[in-house]
Amino acid sequence: MKKINTAPISGMQELLPAAAATFNTLKDKITETYRRHGYLAIETPIIDRCEILLAKAGGDTEKQVYKVVKTAEAADGADQALRFDHTVPLARYVVEHENDLAFPFKVTQIGRNFRGERAQKGRFREFYQCDVDVIGRGDLPLYYDADVITTLLDAFDAFELGTPVVARINNRKILSGLLAEYNLEAQADAVFNIIDHAEKVPAEKTREAFVGLGLGSDRVEKLLDFIEICGGRAEVIKALTAMGVQDDTFEKGVAELDAVMKLIEEDGRAAQIKADMKIVRGLDYYTGTVFEFNLPEYPGVGSVCGGGRYENLAGYFTDQQLPGVGGSIGLTRLFYVLNANGLVTDAAVQPVDVAVVPLSENEIAYALKVAADLRREGKSVTLVGTDKKLGDKLKYAAKVAKSGIVLGETEVQTGQYEVKVFA
Amino acid sequence: MKKINTAPISGMQELLPAAAATFNTLKDKITETYRRHGYLAIETPIIDRCEILLAKAGGDTEKQVYKVVKTAEAADGADQALRFDHTVPLARYVVEHENDLAFPFKVTQIGRNFRGERAQKGRFREFYQCDVDVIGRGDLPLYYDADVITTLLDAFDAFELGTPVVARINNRKILSGLLAEYNLEAQADAVFNIIDHAEKVPAEKTREAFVGLGLGSDRVEKLLDFIEICGGRAEVIKALTAMGVQDDTFEKGVAELDAVMKLIEEDGRAAQIKADMKIVRGLDYYTGTVFEFNLPEYPGVGSVCGGGRYENLAGYFTDQQLPGVGGSIGLTRLFYVLNANGLVTDAAVQPVDVAVVPLSENEIAYALKVAADLRREGKSVTLVGTDKKLGDKLKYAAKVAKSGIVLGETEVQTGQYEVKVFA
Repeated sequence: MKKINTAPISGMQELLPAAAATFNTLKDKITETYRRHGYLAIETPIIDRCEILLAKAGGDTEKQVYKVVKTAEAADGADQALRFDHTVPLARYVVEHENDLAFPFKVTQIGRNFRGERAQKGRFREFYQCDVDVIGRGDLPLYYDADVITTLLDAFDAFELGTPVVARINNRKILSGLLAEYNLEAQADAVFNIIDHAEKVPAEKTREAFVGLGLGSDRVEKLLDFIEICGGRAEVIKALTAMGVQDDTFEKGVAELDAVMKLIEEDGRAAQIKADMKIVRGLDYYTGTVFEFNLPEYPGVGSVCGGGRYENLAGYFTDQQLPGVGGSIGLTRLFYVLNANGLVTDAAVQPVDVAVVPLSENEIAYALKVAADLRREGKSVTLVGTDKKLGDKLKYAAKVAKSGIVLGETEVQTGQYEVKVFA
Repeated sequence: MKKINTAPISGMQELLPAAAATFNTLKDKITETYRRHGYLAIETPIIDRCEILLAKAGGDTEKQVYKVVKTAEAADGADQALRFDHTVPLARYVVEHENDLAFPFKVTQIGRNFRGERAQKGRFREFYQCDVDVIGRGDLPLYYDADVITTLLDAFDAFELGTPVVARINNRKILSGLLAEYNLEAQADAVFNIIDHAEKVPAEKTREAFVGLGLGSDRVEKLLDFIEICGGRAEVIKALTAMGVQDDTFEKGVAELDAVMKLIEEDGRAAQIKADMKIVRGLDYYTGTVFEFNLPEYPGVGSVCGGGRYENLAGYFTDQQLPGVGGSIGLTRLFYVLNANGLVTDAAVQPVDVAVVPLSENEIAYALKVAADLRREGKSVTLVGTDKKLGDKLKYAAKVAKSGIVLGETEVQTGQYEVKVFA
């Protein structure tokens, strides 16, 4: 009988072994894909100084940060906290080790981050993020925007989900330039915010929100038309050009979008991307390319990956200009929604390949040899070392392994044995 | 110029990419070895309730625990903390999920734990532990003590350190029985403590410490002789038997030590183990088998792995008896000492296999194809997407990759290219 509540804290992911094996398979596929694309794996500490972690944060982020106190030093106050993403520690890392890194620095971090969000279904307080970033020193060619997106698409390909994944790509300069043309720069944040939510609310709400900003009905209609622009590269570039906007930033954004999509097409992925003016990604971080991945056949799932280009990674930490582009798969949430939609199933209730069952102590030495041989072939092998009756041993073997080998006197003498595959 | 101190908090491990690659190689070898031995990988949350984490802890452990406070809920007080080992969360996990697990439950956890220790060289506040445990329900055969030790030895074999690793094995029942025979049960903790430190102080200090307990010189000499018993199985069992101790617990301990070592010998590892009466492993947790791994050619390195058998994993959480045996490789500290002793070197300053260098934009499509083909062979490939001069591109390529492929007009036309291996 339990003496105490042993459930994990709500908002924490805790998996049974079979589910953990499936989760790890996805994580391993991401790790391997990032490696093959030349991203260098680093890890930053989970605990960092508040001065670093909160240099830029504010609002919700700061409220959600887990602060850390050592009992013995409680008088210190909480000047340390748990990282809430990989980007801030990466900024510190790049500045700290700048002289030891080669730029463009292609880097990946895969690990747990922490946010004290209100716990609710599918929201996690402790969650895996699987990030790729490319950091330039001084400048960073547009090529790397494509590099990040194709790498992330390749990771989703490796999942073999059996449903298409589409990268919806935009460039924030396009909307910024459009707002300049419309003399709406002062309302830029509000407009970005309305577009960011446009997919989650009825079209009428979006119209009302634009009207609420005091825009004339002409500009409201133009903005509503604009955010519906979506499709293949040629089609979208044509529609954007046809708008006749004379702003340099707008034109630069269109050219960058064209170039990045062209590079991704050259990688043979035209069918996996589309341009979409509804993608803006938050408010003030990204400055160029932005993207989100969706599963078109599962619209309820929402974004399964996102990222973009930022002008300066570490402006709070250094004078050195460090432009970057990156993206992230939120694996804990992704795993949850894939499960909820039946897109992954625990590959094997028994992650172990073979259970070797010696009939008695006399066969253990031989069983150890058989197990070692199978392991050398890469198999996962467990030796059933209980002193229970054979029936109980076999019942256990079938619970933990895909197949079993029973070893008795005859098997030891002949050196031959049968492999029984459990149904 | 830096605007702020960007060093990680002291006591945190932060590696450059090449060192991180070496670290990950060791971690992957451990992961793969544990998998092949049939241990199921799970992860427990890093944050857990103080009620769980501190149910048993006390003294130093409690002082070193990092407590966690959410800013938004500071009024809650710190009722959550960071796990300081894998064992306490495992106890909670096993009790919580008991009905969904098959026993004996062979389980591994590889992850970071946290202790707010005083920072000093080679001591880490955030560190990887790589644990294996086998948990029984009601009972757990002695076979699994050997299973844990051979699995851990196999992991060290996989490291290919080029220096032998020896498992020093003992059984705490032997000393407990001996103390009963000598009527020293009341001083048991003190005696265990003296023996635990015997290797770190001059022999004379150990004698003085025993004398200080008020033992007669006869028993002091017997204890000093006893803790020198060390060697192969047959030799040690003979020496222990020759002591003529009539205590049941002592005899049981000797029989268990004999049986566990015999099982490991049957796995072909006689040369990698010895019995050693100086191994006691802390004070009150372990109840039977205890072990430590050392590198005999590097005595200064100390223990590189340790573990043992415990009577009851989760006595604070449940009435169900859950005996277990486990061991752990403290990878962060191990990596530090292996480096300090030149036993690992960063395998490749360039973890990337191939840098593909298109001469101009015209070759990018072909470069993407070449990169994709090489990736399909499992290679790590980076495409150099900078618009710098060829010389600068090659300099960068040689910094990040082991080899390079330059692609110009000719290569695109002929579909043939040269692979240049960087010196």
